Amino acid sequence: MFKVEIITIGDELLIGQVIDTNSAWMAGELGKAGFDVQYKTTVGDNEKDILEAFELAFSRASIVLVTGGIGPTKDDITKKTLCKYFHTQLVFDEKTLETVAEVVRGLQKDLNELTRTQAYIPENCTVIQNRMGTAPITWFEKEGKILVSMPGVPYEMKWAMNQEIIPRLQKTFPVLDFIQHQHYWVKNYSESLLAMHLESFENELPGFIKLAYLPTSGLIRLRLTGKSSDKVGLQREMDTQRQKLLALLPNDIVSEEDANLENILDKLLKEKGLTLSVAESCTGGKLASLFTAIPGCSEYFMGGVVSYANAAKQHILGVNPSDLIDFGAVSEPVVTQMALGAQRIFDTDCAIATSGIAGPGGGTPEKPVGTVWIAAICKDKMKIEEFHFSQNRESNILRACNCGMMLLLELL
Amino acid sequence: MFKVEIITIGDELLIGQVIDTNSAWMAGELGKAGFDVQYKTTVGDNEKDILEAFELAFSRASIVLVTGGIGPTKDDITKKTLCKYFHTQLVFDEKTLETVAEVVRGLQKDLNELTRTQAYIPENCTVIQNRMGTAPITWFEKEGKILVSMPGVPYEMKWAMNQEIIPRLQKTFPVLDFIQHQHYWVKNYSESLLAMHLESFENELPGFIKLAYLPTSGLIRLRLTGKSSDKVGLQREMDTQRQKLLALLPNDIVSEEDANLENILDKLLKEKGLTLSVAESCTGGKLASLFTAIPGCSEYFMGGVVSYANAAKQHILGVNPSDLIDFGAVSEPVVTQMALGAQRIFDTDCAIATSGIAGPGGGTPEKPVGTVWIAAICKDKMKIEEFHFSQNRESNILRACNCGMMLLLELL
Repeated sequence: MFKVEIITIGDELLIGQVIDTNSAWMAGELGKAGFDVQYKTTVGDNEKDILEAFELAFSRASIVLVTGGIGPTKDDITKKTLCKYFHTQLVFDEKTLETVAEVVRGLQKDLNELTRTQAYIPENCTVIQNRMGTAPITWFEKEGKILVSMPGVPYEMKWAMNQEIIPRLQKTFPVLDFIQHQHYWVKNYSESLLAMHLESFENELPGFIKLAYLPTSGLIRLRLTGKSSDKVGLQREMDTQRQKLLALLPNDIVSEEDANLENILDKLLKEKGLTLSVAESCTGGKLASLFTAIPGCSEYFMGGVVSYANAAKQHILGVNPSDLIDFGAVSEPVVTQMALGAQRIFDTDCAIATSGIAGPGGGTPEKPVGTVWIAAICKDKMKIEEFHFSQNRESNILRACNCGMMLLLELL
Repeated sequence: MFKVEIITIGDELLIGQVIDTNSAWMAGELGKAGFDVQYKTTVGDNEKDILEAFELAFSRASIVLVTGGIGPTKDDITKKTLCKYFHTQLVFDEKTLETVAEVVRGLQKDLNELTRTQAYIPENCTVIQNRMGTAPITWFEKEGKILVSMPGVPYEMKWAMNQEIIPRLQKTFPVLDFIQHQHYWVKNYSESLLAMHLESFENELPGFIKLAYLPTSGLIRLRLTGKSSDKVGLQREMDTQRQKLLALLPNDIVSEEDANLENILDKLLKEKGLTLSVAESCTGGKLASLFTAIPGCSEYFMGGVVSYANAAKQHILGVNPSDLIDFGAVSEPVVTQMALGAQRIFDTDCAIATSGIAGPGGGTPEKPVGTVWIAAICKDKMKIEEFHFSQNRESNILRACNCGMMLLLELL
């Protein structure tokens, strides 16, 4: 197995201004492609520290992936430091300039002198053109090991990893083992209860198959990963384990797709030609934003109402004001009417509605923080459920989104 | 200046299962207390890697802060590895057992055998009792340097850092340098144009003041950091540099707060007693979700409409159907009517509306992907602006959110 080290560069990562979400994403994608991240190191925009990090990484890993510090401004010194480390110099590259100019044109902007300097690249590296931004990706080889420098901007990094870097790594370091993944979205269990329920299943797994619990809000996501040089045997064993798992969780597996719930719904709604709207109280727009983050969602997603104030629930969604008084906003009748209201005003087949106490304030003894009512409708079928989540606002919002999507998924 | 290294331990951090939000928070708190984090390292639950990380950290830092790997389960090996590194052994500590028992009682649970083992602690360290969980915090000294091991559970770690570890570090390592930060949200510039504009300002900065460009969507965030043992002189010089910067960017600084735009608006709207609603097309609920992520936003945030389909713009927000036909959804008249519609139906003082082509589909030669119209209203004042962002959907959504908030900020 080839060891991978991720080095993230940037003062902003060391003073706590930016949370590094990149390296977790990278580790996940690398894992799926058969590469194991063994170390992560963060250093500031400081030549000495960067050089030492390169030195150390090359001493213990075969693949070194570096993010950040390659903007055109003075504080970004990764490119210069790469030159020093690899004993080379910056040279002007016409082809890179063309790409940079194209990216800048795409932004309806003029290419200025500073951005032009992005076309200076270290002499003895392979340049990978960055189609998402102006900082070129550079690929270095040294004694059979690889260092790749890429932007720290998340969408540029994601594009570079998926489109260019991982495919090239797979060519350079062929993973000899076949890798198979299976994915399960599981409801009705907490992580610890599920772990207890699956304890003997997990203990009896052959050594080349591993079970992982992936963090999700409100549901549990399981991944079974098998690695073996025997493709047919691996397939057979993975099938066997799948049958065992299905038998252990007869009514609990919501989906076997390797995708977020919004992507699973996106696919299903398109296939079935159904339209969707949402009415959100405690999820506050998050649920709508999950669908609208997906390109092409306008095919089925008609819109939503964030009815934070009770007046909005009443006037826009048509919730009965006496129900708001009698049962409170976080209640079965209100969430039902919110879903029906969204379905009606957006004229959609399906609707999801959420109403709950996200916290930290607003809880009462009868309805503590974490209490959430959720309704899902598909045509004339409806599912309504009360959930009890956590004390944490962010986690409650995400769990309510996932559970709302799960309820709709069960209706489709 | 005493150098700090943070070591985070856990397999879950290396396979992308958990995003490390702890170390950014720790770095921020340490920075405020005058300690600079210079390195961050992540290793798995593996003795060899942990020992090497300790060795390296002690070779380059004075303060080593270690999180994770101290639960009672088999996979957590940090405590044992600390014993090996410091040539000591685990001993049973009655006082720790009392604290552990107290914490367990607080959770309405019984103390089981596994949790009891938490009271075994390395012999030659100072134990800091953990009042938030069952894993004791341990403090080691070696040749004038310090290593502290603490839980990885965020709220336990935060309690330990604020209540115990930072105060003790301040006693052990009195900070000689004073640190000052200044923050600027800048509009009207791309990062490269701003860097060109500020080139001589940056070159003329005294050596103890550094300028950094922080990545943001749609605006530029600058940070000026000064460090000096002379508090008065530092204050004077930082003031001088601030005056120079304000003169260089007379109409471009949107805010000097060190916070996200939604948090700046949250504070301002509460102070001024103004209410807010949103009407979102291309931002698809993201803008509402930024505000509703903030606890207490219901004081001013009344709600929003995600008017993805034109029918919703027309029927819910009252946009004139002939304007939708004549000018298209992405146009000045439509975004204006969307903002007015939100202001009216939610009965708010302020409103923000967005309508644009997020991409990747939907672009035309006249309105390419990245074209976004944004309107902000505060009472009878309005700002409307056309923006040209990028080809990337995620980035366009975030930029539109930030630029919408910027327009409102300028009206307040």
